Amino acid sequence: MPVAEAVEPGNSPESKGAPAVLPVAVDAMGGDFAPAEIVAGARRAFEELGIPVVLVGPGDGSLGDTGGLEVIAASEVIEMDDDPAKSVRNKKDSSLVRAAEAVRDGRASAMVSAGNTGAAMASALLRMGRLRGVMRPAIATPLPALSGAPTLLVDAGANAECQPEWLVQFAQMGAAFATARYGTARPKVALLSIGEEASKGNGLVKATHELLTGGGGEPGFEFVGNVEGRDLLTGDVDVVVTDGFTGNVALKTLEGALRAFMTILGKVFATSEETKAAGDVLAPSLLEYALRLDPEETGGAMLLGVDGVCVISHGSSSARAIVNAVRVAHDSAAGGLSQRLGDAVSPGA
Amino acid sequence: MPVAEAVEPGNSPESKGAPAVLPVAVDAMGGDFAPAEIVAGARRAFEELGIPVVLVGPGDGSLGDTGGLEVIAASEVIEMDDDPAKSVRNKKDSSLVRAAEAVRDGRASAMVSAGNTGAAMASALLRMGRLRGVMRPAIATPLPALSGAPTLLVDAGANAECQPEWLVQFAQMGAAFATARYGTARPKVALLSIGEEASKGNGLVKATHELLTGGGGEPGFEFVGNVEGRDLLTGDVDVVVTDGFTGNVALKTLEGALRAFMTILGKVFATSEETKAAGDVLAPSLLEYALRLDPEETGGAMLLGVDGVCVISHGSSSARAIVNAVRVAHDSAAGGLSQRLGDAVSPGA
Repeated sequence: MPVAEAVEPGNSPESKGAPAVLPVAVDAMGGDFAPAEIVAGARRAFEELGIPVVLVGPGDGSLGDTGGLEVIAASEVIEMDDDPAKSVRNKKDSSLVRAAEAVRDGRASAMVSAGNTGAAMASALLRMGRLRGVMRPAIATPLPALSGAPTLLVDAGANAECQPEWLVQFAQMGAAFATARYGTARPKVALLSIGEEASKGNGLVKATHELLTGGGGEPGFEFVGNVEGRDLLTGDVDVVVTDGFTGNVALKTLEGALRAFMTILGKVFATSEETKAAGDVLAPSLLEYALRLDPEETGGAMLLGVDGVCVISHGSSSARAIVNAVRVAHDSAAGGLSQRLGDAVSPGA
Repeated sequence: MPVAEAVEPGNSPESKGAPAVLPVAVDAMGGDFAPAEIVAGARRAFEELGIPVVLVGPGDGSLGDTGGLEVIAASEVIEMDDDPAKSVRNKKDSSLVRAAEAVRDGRASAMVSAGNTGAAMASALLRMGRLRGVMRPAIATPLPALSGAPTLLVDAGANAECQPEWLVQFAQMGAAFATARYGTARPKVALLSIGEEASKGNGLVKATHELLTGGGGEPGFEFVGNVEGRDLLTGDVDVVVTDGFTGNVALKTLEGALRAFMTILGKVFATSEETKAAGDVLAPSLLEYALRLDPEETGGAMLLGVDGVCVISHGSSSARAIVNAVRVAHDSAAGGLSQRLGDAVSPGA
């Protein structure tokens, strides 16, 4: 493996005397723009950030110039619309499954995929297994806040149907992840509901509310009660806990709203020569906010609760999104995320 | 009652020879800006659109100048944070309960309230009763589309927990309402889920999907399958069916996104003198879209399935929102909405 030359302070994968750092396994065949954008992102993560990366994909040279990055051979590809469970069972030599195995076998510190989300979850779960004590892994997706650290939405889509006890674990793992990733000392955790009062919500929310308020509270976070959909972008809380159905609907609703607003701005700018000029004046300032809201900047979603680090990047990931995802994956593995999640769920175990 | 002077074509409540038209009962005490904005809106609906209106609220003159509008006396007020069921039970002389009774007793054609949503539903349900065959009333909220008619979200919050059979009725009633209100001949109805495939979703969605595709389809609409949160604003479908928990989360998420974008635009415009000037250039065009997205323009949400017309306006309703709500309430009653909803749920009954 080539040696990194450009290393950011604090991110050094190969400090003097430290043990060799395992590479991040990147699924080269996952995502709408695979493999070109994925390979480009992986190369940049290595070349610019000095993070060791191993690509997983066809070993026949069809990945193009990998910039010297090692390739773990995988002859099959799980498509975006393949059935998750079936494809993981049937495509044993797929890049996604092999990436998960690389983590399981100690060849990689973490995996990153922009492919089929369900299949990424299934691969990670089936190959790495669950962390001890974890009932169900969940997806933590960072929602951009207008100021401060993102709010983590957990579960953003792993479990369409949930039990109250699982949601309590989502709160524990989400809080531990917020602390690990954003340095939030005692994260504020809220339940997504349809009213702030404890009496509001469906049976799942009410039962979870009771579990989270009973027994003197949780050591790792502060439970602040219910929030509503309109609170997701305010940045007032660090973690919003919900079932994977509601979480995924809320996430996609935000995506749709973002798209609608971009469409509107585009139409407004295109109204006349004058509005076009006005748009040019606003562009730099707008771009600053656009970057803050851009999912490509957040590094993707983290699958919490499997025995290893698994970052799931958006299907439309560009090279830039992959760079960020690799950085988050590397930092999370180096920071002992799995250990911290395990401790959060089974304290003192 | 004073006679209307300014009457819009087609909306005339008192055409020559036609039977006397019942007034719309407006809860004068409901909403953040009650009673001033509510009374102002009710007056404008009468004065500008010629729609007969009766106010419901204190009969002691404290409503101010009602412009000659009749007042049905009600001495109590249900507050925004009152418990819905309890308040309807305990505050029998509240403006909300009396408004519902006015419809039940044939003194009003419809009711409008910007007050406590839960209490408005409970009042309507308990005083008017359900339409024959309807298992559960549901809230239909129009979501603005970038072009064309709004998409109706049903249920937007009435039932936190649902059965598949109820969702089928939400589809039937939502489609009938889309036809009645927007003239859509054979509305496209979709289920809100976390993937377009029939296999995606929670148990409720999958079971409802099966009911809607079985038996040769429904006569009143075309079931187009699942949509995701990102499809809510595209205008591609006419009705999106979901349980009231998910629907309310999605609706509030859209509200939060709208607020975040307005905040961003405000900050961008305030960056410098130059951006301020650019903002002024864009203002007229932006305003046009803002009006299209503004919930005040849509006339509020409709409670489908009760035996009478009940429009629930946003808590922050201004006079303008009330004018639109009264217009929708009046037109719906005049168009025989209850009859059409009943026919949709129990064809041939």
